[in-house]
This record gives sequence, structure tokens and C-alpha cells, in this order.
Amino acid sequence: MTLNKDPRHTDLSPEEQSLGHLGREPELLGVEEETHPADAAEHIERLDVDEQIKFIKQLPIKDAAESIAEMDRHEQQSLFQNLNHGFAAKILEQMAPDDATDILESLDEEHRKSLLRRVKAKERAELRNLLTFHPDSAGGAMNTEVVILDESLTVDQAITKMRDEVEDKEIPYYAYLVDAAGRLTGVVSLRDMLVARHGKLLRELVKAQSLISVTYDTDREEVARLIGHYNLLAMPVLDFGNRMLGVVTVDDVIDIIQEEASEDMQAMVGAGADETIDSPVLYSVKKRLPWLVLNVVNSAISAFVVHLFEGTIAQMAILAVLMPVVANQAGNTGQQALAVMIRQLAMEKFDRKRSWLAVLREMRIGMINGFFICLLVWGAVFALTGHLMLANVMTAALAIDISLGAFAGAAIPLVLREIGRDPAQASSIFLTAITDSLGFFCLLGLAVLVLV
Amino acid sequence: MTLNKDPRHTDLSPEEQSLGHLGREPELLGVEEETHPADAAEHIERLDVDEQIKFIKQLPIKDAAESIAEMDRHEQQSLFQNLNHGFAAKILEQMAPDDATDILESLDEEHRKSLLRRVKAKERAELRNLLTFHPDSAGGAMNTEVVILDESLTVDQAITKMRDEVEDKEIPYYAYLVDAAGRLTGVVSLRDMLVARHGKLLRELVKAQSLISVTYDTDREEVARLIGHYNLLAMPVLDFGNRMLGVVTVDDVIDIIQEEASEDMQAMVGAGADETIDSPVLYSVKKRLPWLVLNVVNSAISAFVVHLFEGTIAQMAILAVLMPVVANQAGNTGQQALAVMIRQLAMEKFDRKRSWLAVLREMRIGMINGFFICLLVWGAVFALTGHLMLANVMTAALAIDISLGAFAGAAIPLVLREIGRDPAQASSIFLTAITDSLGFFCLLGLAVLVLV
Repeated sequence: MTLNKDPRHTDLSPEEQSLGHLGREPELLGVEEETHPADAAEHIERLDVDEQIKFIKQLPIKDAAESIAEMDRHEQQSLFQNLNHGFAAKILEQMAPDDATDILESLDEEHRKSLLRRVKAKERAELRNLLTFHPDSAGGAMNTEVVILDESLTVDQAITKMRDEVEDKEIPYYAYLVDAAGRLTGVVSLRDMLVARHGKLLRELVKAQSLISVTYDTDREEVARLIGHYNLLAMPVLDFGNRMLGVVTVDDVIDIIQEEASEDMQAMVGAGADETIDSPVLYSVKKRLPWLVLNVVNSAISAFVVHLFEGTIAQMAILAVLMPVVANQAGNTGQQALAVMIRQLAMEKFDRKRSWLAVLREMRIGMINGFFICLLVWGAVFALTGHLMLANVMTAALAIDISLGAFAGAAIPLVLREIGRDPAQASSIFLTAITDSLGFFCLLGLAVLVLV
Repeated sequence: MTLNKDPRHTDLSPEEQSLGHLGREPELLGVEEETHPADAAEHIERLDVDEQIKFIKQLPIKDAAESIAEMDRHEQQSLFQNLNHGFAAKILEQMAPDDATDILESLDEEHRKSLLRRVKAKERAELRNLLTFHPDSAGGAMNTEVVILDESLTVDQAITKMRDEVEDKEIPYYAYLVDAAGRLTGVVSLRDMLVARHGKLLRELVKAQSLISVTYDTDREEVARLIGHYNLLAMPVLDFGNRMLGVVTVDDVIDIIQEEASEDMQAMVGAGADETIDSPVLYSVKKRLPWLVLNVVNSAISAFVVHLFEGTIAQMAILAVLMPVVANQAGNTGQQALAVMIRQLAMEKFDRKRSWLAVLREMRIGMINGFFICLLVWGAVFALTGHLMLANVMTAALAIDISLGAFAGAAIPLVLREIGRDPAQASSIFLTAITDSLGFFCLLGLAVLVLV
């Protein structure tokens, strides 16, 4: 398929020009250029929905399905809400089943049922089956188009079988060997088959290395971690009887890792985990508002702390000047700890002891940095106010709040995890509530004891 | 190789048990278990450095090299600082050249030169060559062990040639076709070769789709984005004469994406971009302290704003109670915008117009949410103080600060990018400085105008 105008090829910044090969290859290859589905998807996303439908209808159905599969989740959803059901069902039939399942999951039940009724019986059964898995599990992310071979075949027989079958399969870089009962017994890469002597049995090609697989209920983030850890191109997904259900492929893992990274960063401050700049404004409003309201409640707590000391502040208004400095420094220290811990939990298998040792590490870092910051602040307050005891009080409050900030920043994600919540969710909001209240309390409380 | 005790197999949490296959496969396969290098690396990382060296020396050199390649960057560095140079050089020779380069880059120049002198001439030339590329470029991330075939070979000839060569190559899922001048002309997957008729020329297998490649100076993050975008397993890296230099493979891309996600989240709050919980405490202190000092300077600015109104606060201490509430709400709103924008810049090719439109979107979201938060806060302040004008002043300050917070949160990463800086770097610190100062100024300034 050919786009009339690919927005990528105009108006190149210097950075983009270093990628100039994207546009130049056709001459080099001497073949007609075809637009990659991922580029077509980008083109479609920039049209409004009527133009999208017009554009898609003029594509061969297979190309349309491939392009739609590459679109952003929200864009897919809005497109399908506007396609007539018969045409939508035809597109779903042409799509890789895992991609079709993702789209069906984004639609309401009525709509989903209506589309499924129109899909051909064979594809319908497959989709119904995939829809039973949790979208965040290995089952929900897996691809069922996988090359499964009997381990007792020879390499020749296997290659002949693959020649007949391989066109249907999405990414067959591995072939999976099963025994007579359909249980997974080994994995052979195409490369191994290509370089093996033809008479050899597939079973003899299996490497003496433990076979890595997951069950369908494994969290997809864990699957992503394992694929990254073992440098695999695909992870076999099994049922509890070791029968092969499908594979999670590395290209899906890249999407999973990107989505999880967005989730962590956005959930931390109470934005929607799956928001992008293409999400509808009201969707983002709905996702964020509850956390902002929680933040109001948290602020009310720290405001109450200040309120307790209103009399003191009326006597010494300088305290109101210093209050935000304490809260800010402790908050920043805590956020540094928070960021490192959230990334740690995202990237590594959870290890309780190791994680709590990391909290100690963060407290050490926070306290060393706090020492220097306290020195600096003590000097500045004393130099600017000439008030020794005020400088002392300020520094003491700062030291306490920074230490607690470092502890809280590192501990909050762990605590959230221990109580079964997302370690990132609103963590920054909770942290600020703690560092603000405690900072205000220490500064104003010490002032009452020592100064007023 | 076999580990006596793999810490992964003990003390399994329920979550870990769902991955039980990791430990159970040997029986299933009927082959002797071998430890995966990635697991060996994890084991090594938990030893102290003397034990690490003892453990490594008892492994076959090839296994030692593979395991070390999977270790954390800081752990590799500390290990190499303690290995004797002759042994270290032997390990580097056995490693994939891109991994060996990463390690050499982490060492000081003296040490690097000493090791290189001890590496065999052929490998030395290769490593010296790779060390000339910037570590964050495609050249710095690429693997040079790649299957390059003359496009005029037949499939038979190609397979024969690959049988002889393939053992040396790390991940040959694609073979790269070159013309007589060594210029890249096409890519053929092993799967295409496996299913093709044997007499066919390689050139005839090339798909009529534009060949995607990058030049060696392309940013590695851009390479990762392209591999994700086009669902590739490897990206060819060319010089400016279209000659093939190597490939960036998808397993390295997973590491790149994870590293970049950590960089963004950590840089945002002024933690070191490459910090992990394994980084030495003093390394983290050194990375974070400058940003904390910047934060002190920023706090000093907002403190100065409050200082200007000390007299007002002495008259109306309730203002000190409300100050942090304004700053906090605007800060949180801004951080939500910030998180979504940073992820956007990380995941998509930069598009100036689209990015600035996203700033508008963030302002709309911020203002809608701000409307509800203002209503809530107005009601709370009026109910608790019974002071109508105070509630009005508070709400007006909040409305202004939230709007600006949403704008600043979305715009800061773009501005940083436009001036050639990392869009995430200290962005949260800058944001807080803006929302604090402006929030205090609006609240106290309006109070002076209307209330006092």
C-alpha cells in the first residue's frame, strides 16, 4: 500500500535527517516502496474519524488490519466505535488474535458481543478463548500463532512441515517441541534447524539448558522481566499441565515495558496509568481528579499542623518564610529515593530483604546529603537573619524532615507493594503529605520550645 | 556450568511459585541443567568482590565472560578494578565486542589501555574501533557479529556459508545482503531462507518494503524507538556510505528502554540517571547533591517571596496555613502534566507542533480539574473560617497557580529539549520552584490588595 503523503518525510529536523535512510532506500533496493503498517498507523492516527474510515476502506483488508493493530489503544477504540459492525468483524478476522483481543477488550460488552457474532466461527472461538485471560497476564498478552512440532520429527520433516504452515504464523523464530501428550519438551531456534544435519531428530537439537516458560496467569510485567533477563525472543506460555498455549513475543514485550514505565511515572503523581497526549481530555480529568482531591485532603492535614501554631507565626512571621524551605528539601530528597525504588521494583524480581536493605541505603544517602544541605541552610539563615537560635531550629527541623523524607520515599513503594497495591500509585502524593506535615511540625514545634 | 546454590530456588513467594517452571524443567527435558548466564550474573552480584573473583576463576572462561556480560554496570566496573589485567583481558576477548566495549568505557584511561594491550591483536582492533563511537549512539550500542552475505548467492550457497560461520555470530535472525561494494541492499530473515526454494537467489527473497536502517551516529534511544515502532529484531547500523557496520539487537533495546525509563524518572527529581540500588552510596550522593543544592536556591526564591509579605502574615497568620495548600495543589497538577509529557517525549519521535498542542491539552485538563478543586477548597475555607473574602482570595490564588502549574509542567520538558538539554533533567525541581513562588505571591499579594 502507498500513502499519498507521509508526514514523516517532510520538514526534517537535523536529528531526523540522521535517520534519512528511512526515506532513501527504494532507489537503493530497486523495489517499489511499500508503507510499513506502523507508519500507516501513524498516518491514520492524525486523521479525524471520518477520514480514518474512508482511508481504511480503500486499503486491502489485510493491510487495514495490520495498520490498525499498530495504532494507539484509544485511537483503536474510537475507530471501532464508529465502524459498522460487519466491516469491523472482517478486520478482526484478519488481525493477529492477540491484537484483536486487545481491541475487543476496550469495547463495551454489548458492542463486543455484536462484533463476535459477526466473526467467522473459527476465529470467534479463538477470540472468545483469549478474552478469558486477564489482560495483564501472560495469557492476555500471548500470541497463539506459534509453530509447534512433534519432537520425534527429523529436521527435514520439520522444515517441510514449516514450509506449509509458516505463512500463517506471526514470528516463528523458535519452534516449540511437544511430546505425544502435547506437553512442551524443548525449544529449537530456526537458526539451529538451518545449520543442523538434515537427518537429525529435533529432540537432539534441544540445548542442555533449562527450558524457560511461564504459566498463563503470570503477570505480563514478570514475563517482560524474564524475557529481558534471559535475552529471549519469545516466552512460551503453558497451562498447568505443561501444554503449550502460545508465546509472548519480544515486540510485545517492548510495548509492555514502555506501558509499565508510563504507568509508574504517571501513577506516582496521580495521572492515569494509560494516559497519553492522545487520550481524550475528559478521560484524563476523570483519572486525575480523585488523586488531586486526595492531595487536598493531605494538604488539609499539613494546613492543620500549621494552624496549631498560628499564634507562633503571628509572633514570628519569619517562620512562614522558612516553612516551605524545610518541606521542599525533604520532599525532594524523598522523591529521589522514591524514583530509584520504583524503578528497582519495576526492573527486578521482588526480593524483600534486598528491598528493605535498599531503604537503609537511601537513608544513608539522604542523611549524607542532608548534612551538606543543613550546613548550607544554617549558614544562609544565620547570615541573612543574624539569629543564631533561629538558624539552629531551622537546621534541626530540616535534618529531621530530610531523614524522614529519605526513609518515607524509599519505604512508601514497598509498603504499597506489601499491602497488595501498585508500588507507584500516588506515592509522590503520600510522600509530600508526610514531608510537609512533619517539616511544619518540627519547625514550628521547635520554635515554640526554643524561640517564642 | 552449575551453581551449588541458586538463591532463586529458595524461599519462593506465591508470586514466584507461579514461575515454578524455572526450577522444574530439568526432569521435563531429561537433560542436565545448566545455569543461564543471566542467573549466574545475579548470583555473582550477591557475592563480595573476593568471592566473585574466586567464583569466576573456577568457571570455563567462555562461561565467565557470558555471565559477567549480564552483570550490572557498577558491579562489572568494581569487578574489573579488582581482576588482574591478564585474566581480565582474556575475559574481554571471549565477550561479545559490544559488551566488552561497555566495560572498557567504565574504566579509567590508564586501566583501559593496559587491558587493551593484553588483548589479542584481532579483538583489540575491533574493540579500539568500537570505543570510538559515542556510548549513547547506535555505533556504541551495536553488535558487530553479524551475518553478511553477497546478494548474488543462492539460498543453498548461503545456507552452506552460514553453517560454517554461524557459531561465531551472536543473534543471526536476519542475514544482511550486500552488493559488490559492501553496501547494504536488503535483509532476509532466516525464516525466509528456511522456507525458500533452494535454487533461488538471495536477492529475490528481499521484500518489497523499504529497508529500515540507521547511521552509526543515531541516538540509541531513537534506535530503540524505531525497533519498537517497526517490530524488528535487529536494526542494521551503516556508515554514511551505506556500508554495514553492525546491528543493534532487540535484547539490547530492552536494556536501553529500561535504562532510559530509569533515567527519565530519576533525572526528573535530580537523582543520578544510571543509579540503581546497587550503586555505591557515595556515587548517589555525588549525583544528587548538586540538584538538592539547586533546590535550596529555588526554595530561597520562594522564601524571598514570602519574606516580602512578612508583615501581612504577622497580621493574618491564617495565610501561612493556606500557603502550602495552594503550592501543593498547583505542584501536583503540574507534576501530572510533567509525567505525561516526559513519557510522550520518550516514546514518540519528536514533533514540535504536536508537542505544543499537548501543552494546550494539559492546560485544559489542569483548568477543568482546577475548577473542581477550587470549588472544594472555597467551600472548605469558607466553612472553616466563615471569612468570605478569605475564601475568595484563596480560591483566586489557587486558580491562577493551578493553571500556571499545568502549563509549566507540560512546557518545562519541551523548553529543556529546545535548549538542547535532557527534557526530564530536574524538571520536577524547576516546576516546584515556579508553583511555589507564584502560589505564595498570588495568595499573599491578593491578601494585601483585598484583605489587610
